[in-house]
Amino acid sequence: MTNPDLLIKNIGVLATPVGNCPVGGNRQGDIKLIKDAFIAVKDGVITGVGSAENLVHITLGEKTVVIDAGGKLVTPGLVDPHTHLIFSGWRQKELSLKLKGMKYLEILKMGGGILSTVRNTRKASLEELVSNGMKSLDRMLEHGTTTCEAKSGYGLNLKDELKSLAAIRELNRCHPLDVVPTFMGAHAVPEEYRENKKEYIRLIVEEMIPRVARDKLAEFCDVFCEEGVFDIEESRYILESGKAHGLIPKLHADEITPMGGAKLAAEVGALSAEHLIYATDEGIRAMAEAGTIAVLLPGTSFYLGESFARARTIIEAGIPVALATDFNPGSSPTESLQLVMNIACLKYRMTPEEVLTAVTLNSAAAVNRASTIGTIEVGKQADIVIWDAPDLDFIFYHYGVNLVRTVIKKGRVVVQK
Amino acid sequence: MTNPDLLIKNIGVLATPVGNCPVGGNRQGDIKLIKDAFIAVKDGVITGVGSAENLVHITLGEKTVVIDAGGKLVTPGLVDPHTHLIFSGWRQKELSLKLKGMKYLEILKMGGGILSTVRNTRKASLEELVSNGMKSLDRMLEHGTTTCEAKSGYGLNLKDELKSLAAIRELNRCHPLDVVPTFMGAHAVPEEYRENKKEYIRLIVEEMIPRVARDKLAEFCDVFCEEGVFDIEESRYILESGKAHGLIPKLHADEITPMGGAKLAAEVGALSAEHLIYATDEGIRAMAEAGTIAVLLPGTSFYLGESFARARTIIEAGIPVALATDFNPGSSPTESLQLVMNIACLKYRMTPEEVLTAVTLNSAAAVNRASTIGTIEVGKQADIVIWDAPDLDFIFYHYGVNLVRTVIKKGRVVVQK
Ligand SMILES: [Zn+2]
Ligand SMILES: [Zn+2]
Repeated sequence: MTNPDLLIKNIGVLATPVGNCPVGGNRQGDIKLIKDAFIAVKDGVITGVGSAENLVHITLGEKTVVIDAGGKLVTPGLVDPHTHLIFSGWRQKELSLKLKGMKYLEILKMGGGILSTVRNTRKASLEELVSNGMKSLDRMLEHGTTTCEAKSGYGLNLKDELKSLAAIRELNRCHPLDVVPTFMGAHAVPEEYRENKKEYIRLIVEEMIPRVARDKLAEFCDVFCEEGVFDIEESRYILESGKAHGLIPKLHADEITPMGGAKLAAEVGALSAEHLIYATDEGIRAMAEAGTIAVLLPGTSFYLGESFARARTIIEAGIPVALATDFNPGSSPTESLQLVMNIACLKYRMTPEEVLTAVTLNSAAAVNRASTIGTIEVGKQADIVIWDAPDLDFIFYHYGVNLVRTVIKKGRVVVQK
Repeated sequence: MTNPDLLIKNIGVLATPVGNCPVGGNRQGDIKLIKDAFIAVKDGVITGVGSAENLVHITLGEKTVVIDAGGKLVTPGLVDPHTHLIFSGWRQKELSLKLKGMKYLEILKMGGGILSTVRNTRKASLEELVSNGMKSLDRMLEHGTTTCEAKSGYGLNLKDELKSLAAIRELNRCHPLDVVPTFMGAHAVPEEYRENKKEYIRLIVEEMIPRVARDKLAEFCDVFCEEGVFDIEESRYILESGKAHGLIPKLHADEITPMGGAKLAAEVGALSAEHLIYATDEGIRAMAEAGTIAVLLPGTSFYLGESFARARTIIEAGIPVALATDFNPGSSPTESLQLVMNIACLKYRMTPEEVLTAVTLNSAAAVNRASTIGTIEVGKQADIVIWDAPDLDFIFYHYGVNLVRTVIKKGRVVVQK
């Protein structure tokens, strides 16, 4: 190994999952630990990883940037595989109304809730959506996230869904984070189609999906399968239509009621099923057999004061669990995957090792990127976090504060505290 | 008003409680809001507060520092009235053991738990304790805390309790935060007195308290009143002895079992009772009658996965509620009062206005400082936070990230992001 662009040395402990495939069951917590380690990077790719004693085999060039990790913990950059990044207008007033006893349905009647975000997002220009998104991505990066998924779904018509996906494309281009696009026209039924859902589904299937696919604006197609939103057969129809156009299915499944979403996700060959708070044993078995990844969102349960998904049951079924923020202006207004990691430990009883897998390798797999990111191994993209922590346990223990010290994206330092 | 040292202008909304007395019941949420406001400061003290239209009455000097708050929210600096700041050695390993199913008693037997912190704190030099404390105070300040209380209680002998209190004195001198000292020799019974608690209590009462009082090392005396630690009569004896030497009583009350701590706090005239998870109706009534402040610690309940105090019952009884981090290496390893504020909203169902009172005016009162801090009014110390938030609701809504933009302590900018 000669002349790396970047050498990270004096790593107290390097903690990383291994391989290119999502892991579940007993293997969810299989972490490789290297004490007193180094990482070498060239052209944005990891070219060497090992113990300090092997540093002698590396010849530094004149331009090699050397970072001293100060004996601290190093992990792969975090991957947030479920966000509703593209929207206009925060909805802070609603929290206060809810605390004062108002129900979500009353808030909806007052013009609040998701449809207010749809109104504001439709009004917003592309530039405004990009500018909002940049601020949120900055916060994610500060907290150690180096790749995120982002969904459309507050446009709910052809023009504004395309605008939302164009914003994601622009953010991916301008911001250091990699942003992976998901088309979610089936996030809600817009007001103007309230009495004619069938026609809205036709619009999604016949106009939106073909256009999104043609312009390569998304890799995934996601549906909010829930009572009063899209039922099982409608969701299946939309996801199958997406598949026919090359969009990989994802599914918001069993979040509020046990609809059978987990089973549907397995049946349509979805890459992942999300939320799963009320997933049945049958649904979990089906996901395990199909190899569907479970993307769990404990921040949302925490913020809404709702039940938590049965994470241990899901892990024990052999399903790979990933974790995400669900960042959105209604049910989870946070960009911090770190807090989500803390909550997963405390409420799901996941171990630090299981959580690390969930926010790196498994979440990379949930956005179809496990061959290039999610672990620290030779050949993978150099997305790396140096933590202000002596070991892995510490970042789950010292809660409520941002413990990121340095973030490296594609071999370049993008956050330094 | 002429020639202020500091002028903060373009405040979108200034939110502050009012007055020098703790408030409970309906008044807990009484917040004064001034839109488009300014604050003028001279010699570290607030000399003017008002709407922008009154700015014409202020003559700036050549050296006046002008801060543009950018239309954002401004509140008093946060006051954290319950921390165990002085210790050596984090205990991150224990979280992982607990997640793997180990009980606290087993951890204690392995040499972990509070007594391991006592061993490490005894071994630590004064300089080491000060250096650890500086890092924690830096984190508090970053998160908007401008005053905190700090307890001794990991020394548990004369020499090391004095060393801990000396560390607090030194931190108060060196760090921008005001650190208010509490003597808590009665935090636990040390190993060497396990069979002779009576003798340890004698040590506290006859040797520690007189010495602490003589050297003016603490303002408060606190006791961990709990099954297997100090019972009601032991706690009363220690607090009365402290009172006789001028130390104001505080009490860790009814945290794990309904011991009657709340009632005892009322009976001894404690300034505050802490935790109160299992406080009985009788105890709450007694506190309300005595005017005892309730210092609630929702972060600890969250981190331990335990029950939450009946905050709404306590508020409705007319008791002023304050909130604190309980920062310590065992049951609440966080310096962030912001996350505690979020949890108080979500789990206690306290409104944003009630929580603001709880972390400013009422927490200032809980450390006997309500006449000088805790509100933004003329004559009070200029401890001020500018938030990256358009209004008060926002800081409770946009959870999991640090929303502090600028922290001003005694009129001086100490954090600027
Ligand atoms: Zn979602
Ligand atoms: Zn305490």
